[in-house]
Amino acid sequence: MIKTITGKKDFIESLRGKRAEFLLALCYTKTSNIEGITQAGIPGKIYLTPTLDSEFLAIGEVRSLGDVAKTPKGVPTPALLTRGVHLLKPFSNISFLDLGLKVKPSIEYFKVYDFNLKPSVNIAKEKSFDAKKVFKKGYKFGKNYKTKEDYIIIGESTPAGTTTAKATALALGYEAEEFFSSSFKNVPNDIKKEVIKKALKKVKNSDSIFKKLGKVSDNMIVFLAGFLLGLKDTKVILAGGTQMGAVLLVVDSILKESKLEFDSKNIALCTTKWVAEDENSDIKALLNLLDFPINSYYADFDFLLSSHPALKLYDEGEAKEGVGAGGALVYGLLNGLSKEDITKKVESFLG
Amino acid sequence: MIKTITGKKDFIESLRGKRAEFLLALCYTKTSNIEGITQAGIPGKIYLTPTLDSEFLAIGEVRSLGDVAKTPKGVPTPALLTRGVHLLKPFSNISFLDLGLKVKPSIEYFKVYDFNLKPSVNIAKEKSFDAKKVFKKGYKFGKNYKTKEDYIIIGESTPAGTTTAKATALALGYEAEEFFSSSFKNVPNDIKKEVIKKALKKVKNSDSIFKKLGKVSDNMIVFLAGFLLGLKDTKVILAGGTQMGAVLLVVDSILKESKLEFDSKNIALCTTKWVAEDENSDIKALLNLLDFPINSYYADFDFLLSSHPALKLYDEGEAKEGVGAGGALVYGLLNGLSKEDITKKVESFLG
Repeated sequence: MIKTITGKKDFIESLRGKRAEFLLALCYTKTSNIEGITQAGIPGKIYLTPTLDSEFLAIGEVRSLGDVAKTPKGVPTPALLTRGVHLLKPFSNISFLDLGLKVKPSIEYFKVYDFNLKPSVNIAKEKSFDAKKVFKKGYKFGKNYKTKEDYIIIGESTPAGTTTAKATALALGYEAEEFFSSSFKNVPNDIKKEVIKKALKKVKNSDSIFKKLGKVSDNMIVFLAGFLLGLKDTKVILAGGTQMGAVLLVVDSILKESKLEFDSKNIALCTTKWVAEDENSDIKALLNLLDFPINSYYADFDFLLSSHPALKLYDEGEAKEGVGAGGALVYGLLNGLSKEDITKKVESFLG
Repeated sequence: MIKTITGKKDFIESLRGKRAEFLLALCYTKTSNIEGITQAGIPGKIYLTPTLDSEFLAIGEVRSLGDVAKTPKGVPTPALLTRGVHLLKPFSNISFLDLGLKVKPSIEYFKVYDFNLKPSVNIAKEKSFDAKKVFKKGYKFGKNYKTKEDYIIIGESTPAGTTTAKATALALGYEAEEFFSSSFKNVPNDIKKEVIKKALKKVKNSDSIFKKLGKVSDNMIVFLAGFLLGLKDTKVILAGGTQMGAVLLVVDSILKESKLEFDSKNIALCTTKWVAEDENSDIKALLNLLDFPINSYYADFDFLLSSHPALKLYDEGEAKEGVGAGGALVYGLLNGLSKEDITKKVESFLG
């Protein structure tokens, strides 16, 4: 079952049976090196997570390291969900956006778009990055992008991404203090708060939008905002939670100050139940901050049918979302997969 | 299992695994307001049935009324079958033809073609409608129609449609008195016969085909006959029972008097077991009246696996067909669905 968060079910129902390609935005921000800020990867090797996620999604194995990226508590990457859906009901195409990786994915035959971007800065320590340049690259890519399929699903892999997402929303002036999610069950609020505080201290009211973004955000958020504004007449599922919400907030802010056109009727955000029902965040309230209407949905999927301890951790609130898991689950449900089908397939990866 | 009624199994086997779009012709004829003539809907609100069917098929809920259209005995609309198949093995696209609705479907993102047609006349009371105009609109639509998929499945929702279908066949001179089906198990022959008698009384032997059609038929039959004659090189499944048979009889009649070309090799009729095995009608004999060869099939599907009382009524002969149920079932079976899959999904709608 697919449930509606904001808007009506018509948009998502109209995509039933239609063909989708999957784009995965891969982003490494040095903010993720701050100790304890993320559990999306192996401590000391967090920078590898997007690389490993892309390898696992594309070919089902991780080449740049021996094992699937796990959190310290043993929660495997949500890439398992995306890959599981892809095996059962394949996307028509998968390609990757290298938005500043340290290590490139070791895969052939899959398109990895290279935008010649550096890793995103550590927002607590470094001054800023050129967000306008990143935005322009995303905008140009969107403007020239023609999908052969009926719609695009875009996911992301950005360790520490909820921290930069929250900093982004606050820097842009949205009252979104309580709305942002985390991959942790027990959110390390002190560390995150400290980082966000340091980042926001750099921001001046008089800064332009892009100046603000350069001080607090990451390449994924800025690039995808540009991509969405560049695209024309293309249906898109933003596959993710509050980080994708931040992408939409950036779009919203830019629209207020520019003459760019944007048809939000073509866009929907799709996330997981773990995000939609999370008590420590509020994706619905976040989306309601937007000036434009937006359809959003979540996949009514959990691991109730599984007894695998690593998977039960999702239901307890770990990991929650990432690598487009929510959008992939919605795509699976739209195309006839059952909760049982998906659970079994994900379990098969864990042995 | 898909069983052959007329022709050979080759046509339908050649569509296995191919992509189909679904068109639903929505038609309201004032004939349906005659008391006791139809059980396809809520008494006094029969005009809503095609609207509700389209909403339920597209988005899984009825917006123009509180509940799914049911017959007085509690047989739910065959839209449940079509929707059930769509959830398990989605059509590549669904769109609607508004052939004179009183209330437009309340859905977004789905294409609803508007032909600016009025509701069809009450054939027992009103003089006639301009059937040539309706035919021409169908012909033009067919001529310009290009599907992106491998074939088209066309269903219809037309309460009282078996009455106008039978009147159509008889007015055109086909000896088809015993061949037409009804949504009732215990067919209200007196009312139907009376209506058809009154309609046929208006018809003169010297009338042109279109004049005859205007006096006794409905927009769905006339429009779809035009559509089929306008289409070129496109494979079509006529998803329905004796009403779709009447569409073919109209095509047959027009071909005898015109220079239009028609390749019946591209068309097949697909219906339900309840129609194919109905003792009160004879779809096979009806199709054998055609001068051209036609492939026709039925889905060997019943509710033997269900114990739901509302669904058992289908097996007892109520409802039988509509909203493209037969064609949808054939599509489901062509694409690997089992009787069990479909039964469970349909049951899930009823709670």
